Amino acid sequence: MPQTKFILQENDIPTHWYNIVADMPNPPAPVLGPDGKPIGPEALAPIFPMSLIMQEVSGERWIPIPEPVREAYRLYRPSPLFRAHRLEAALGTPAKIYYKYEGISPAGSHKVNTSIPQAYYNKEAGIKRIATETGAGQWGSSMALAGHMFGLEVRVYMVKVSYEQKPFRRSMMHTWGAEVFASPSMETQSGRAALAADPNNPGSLGLAISEAVEDAAHRADTNYALGSVLNHVLLHQTVIGLEAKKQFELAGDYPDMIFAPCGGGSNFGGAAFPFFADKACGRDVRLVAVEPSSCPTLTRGKYAYDFGDTAKLTPMLKMFTLGHDFMPPGIHAGGLRYHGASALVSQLYHEKLIEAVAVPQIATFQAGVTFARAEGIIPAPESNHAIAACIDEALRCKASGEPKTLFFNLSGHGHFDMAAYDKYFSGQLEDFAYPEDALQESLANLPKVEA
Amino acid sequence: MPQTKFILQENDIPTHWYNIVADMPNPPAPVLGPDGKPIGPEALAPIFPMSLIMQEVSGERWIPIPEPVREAYRLYRPSPLFRAHRLEAALGTPAKIYYKYEGISPAGSHKVNTSIPQAYYNKEAGIKRIATETGAGQWGSSMALAGHMFGLEVRVYMVKVSYEQKPFRRSMMHTWGAEVFASPSMETQSGRAALAADPNNPGSLGLAISEAVEDAAHRADTNYALGSVLNHVLLHQTVIGLEAKKQFELAGDYPDMIFAPCGGGSNFGGAAFPFFADKACGRDVRLVAVEPSSCPTLTRGKYAYDFGDTAKLTPMLKMFTLGHDFMPPGIHAGGLRYHGASALVSQLYHEKLIEAVAVPQIATFQAGVTFARAEGIIPAPESNHAIAACIDEALRCKASGEPKTLFFNLSGHGHFDMAAYDKYFSGQLEDFAYPEDALQESLANLPKVEA
Repeated sequence: MPQTKFILQENDIPTHWYNIVADMPNPPAPVLGPDGKPIGPEALAPIFPMSLIMQEVSGERWIPIPEPVREAYRLYRPSPLFRAHRLEAALGTPAKIYYKYEGISPAGSHKVNTSIPQAYYNKEAGIKRIATETGAGQWGSSMALAGHMFGLEVRVYMVKVSYEQKPFRRSMMHTWGAEVFASPSMETQSGRAALAADPNNPGSLGLAISEAVEDAAHRADTNYALGSVLNHVLLHQTVIGLEAKKQFELAGDYPDMIFAPCGGGSNFGGAAFPFFADKACGRDVRLVAVEPSSCPTLTRGKYAYDFGDTAKLTPMLKMFTLGHDFMPPGIHAGGLRYHGASALVSQLYHEKLIEAVAVPQIATFQAGVTFARAEGIIPAPESNHAIAACIDEALRCKASGEPKTLFFNLSGHGHFDMAAYDKYFSGQLEDFAYPEDALQESLANLPKVEA
Repeated sequence: MPQTKFILQENDIPTHWYNIVADMPNPPAPVLGPDGKPIGPEALAPIFPMSLIMQEVSGERWIPIPEPVREAYRLYRPSPLFRAHRLEAALGTPAKIYYKYEGISPAGSHKVNTSIPQAYYNKEAGIKRIATETGAGQWGSSMALAGHMFGLEVRVYMVKVSYEQKPFRRSMMHTWGAEVFASPSMETQSGRAALAADPNNPGSLGLAISEAVEDAAHRADTNYALGSVLNHVLLHQTVIGLEAKKQFELAGDYPDMIFAPCGGGSNFGGAAFPFFADKACGRDVRLVAVEPSSCPTLTRGKYAYDFGDTAKLTPMLKMFTLGHDFMPPGIHAGGLRYHGASALVSQLYHEKLIEAVAVPQIATFQAGVTFARAEGIIPAPESNHAIAACIDEALRCKASGEPKTLFFNLSGHGHFDMAAYDKYFSGQLEDFAYPEDALQESLANLPKVEA
């Protein structure tokens, strides 16, 4: 009987994270301060511990994972790699499909892979409290869990539309002892300003980031934590791809194409970057970032310096961006709604070393239901993006007869997203291509910086 | 670093289920028909396939698991056994605590262990459609998933109070293609009669069973499936305990006490029965069934013949029962609200070969939150019962200094039960000891049968 799962033991949890910077053909573009000049590590010190800042700027290929972090990873790692025999049969494709299932973490997604080390390093630095934001809720619940594990207080600014639509993500954060506020909130200057301008402001990830950064900057005992975008976050997520490589060895196989959801970029970076190293060794593996048509950062954004948040409190990163005051449409059900993409992912895409594709919303849910009916697991809406692109490729293989090996990152389960599935079943979901004029308007507000 | 998880490979999935009947000191009490006389296997044929009926009455110690069932189990089995290092530290107990985590199944609980073989055997018997009931929703979603895997239509009668309080369990069943009706419904005679008597009838598991049995009995292409209570259901669940025994070998340890939630009894039977066999070989392992104080079947019920459902459509089983028209209090948040307990569990309890304890609701949630904060996973309210009893014992060990080895079945996650956690946090949950007069009234309606 062919194997369904490729299972590692606890001592197979990676001992080092993989830093793609060491293998990029060009060094990362510098991070700029408000004056348009490159900033040094110390500029980030008010909101991050120095250990994470050093990871942010490191060029070392391998960064050791501290033992207390590996110890905490043991609660759910290694995660299984599945061969999707039933999905292949349902599609009638000659392609072999594999997926890594990160939904086994207690918070239900891959985000815990970085919330744990972020909590650890902050605790080591003597920090008592973390302020962070969350959109769909995966990151906030992951930070709540990790904060509790390492004895940190956690405050989460949750994008208001999610706060109202996903009460059970809130309950989850409460269970792990975190405080949760709807953003924009009255707790910060940025929040109060947004509410003054529009009391019905539904919130955005960029605005929630402003609130959390402001909170952290104003309290000495408090740091900020971000769930994606930054280099150290992508670094931590490489445990996904590193484990997957071991599991492909067990399977005696290797992917021709890798698909991962792409919002801020850590989901994609975590799954795909460890395979990027193999490209240099002559492996022909295609890495595909999959994003929503309603928030098409890579496929329709501009590669330019921009702020990470609405209130322009963060430094400027060179990245594909839709503009820092981009407001995702309310009809968009899942996460992946950040206006920018990781600088590393953006640079690789700009240099045509990776690929990107945008998928409309209804197609992603269609793919998710096809997957759930074949493989059992109900995927998170974010993960459905990767599934949709992978199924498309599997069907192309069916037409061409090519037995490609496809791999996608099933980054989380959809247990807290059933309301979105209900909307899909009842025909209430809409597709939405972000309007060109709105995009141009938002891009016109990019900071004026010499490239 | 001490191991946290004891992980098996797919070829460690058991090849046989364990049938406790072979090791019981006395044969099971006969099942009685409406005339009070023992019935033969053929009496069950209108609603069950003969293969399952033969398992129901088998005295063989080992029943082979068909390969297509093992193949389907591979989607999520073997499940991990965890050593709860963090919970032990949080409690400051010298006891060693282990738990088996069945929430890794796609439907989120152990119930899939029996829905898969039930779907398989019905499909083999040429059945096209399954009618079943669900209370809290774990069983209905498990049957929906397994039905879809084997190409069967599934209709679920869902206790109305749960149907309204747990819309996302419904969405889950829809995702796997099942039909779901609130019970009492207008779809059956039993449902219409209940609604005629009281249009606001909140439903009960006994009544939903009546509806599903009636549906199955009236259609030749349809069979009935039950998620607990019956011998063949407990048989299928023994994969939990059988895997756990292998995992304790890996851990070089063996439990002194085993705790499992007990409603119908399959959760308890599945985890504990395989260890019962060892008692005959001189192992001193205590098996503790944990039930809610608001539905105290074993600890306050009567050991007597009773019907399995409200409308008295089922045969009579000798079991601990609160009476077939027992209506659990609406304030009870979790499952485990069936009026009776498995005949096998009841007989073992009556013969003092196993133990039982009832736990009040608030204490179960308190235990669940303690667990979630230490081990990450948010448990199902049912599982919280076992956790509460296990933590109580661990604290007794703390007082006495005994380093006992404790094991409990973490039968499911609480992702669809966060509303109950919200109630707990906001102080809206109540404890409820079932009133003695209501109990006596319900017990007075037991059928008059010579024991």
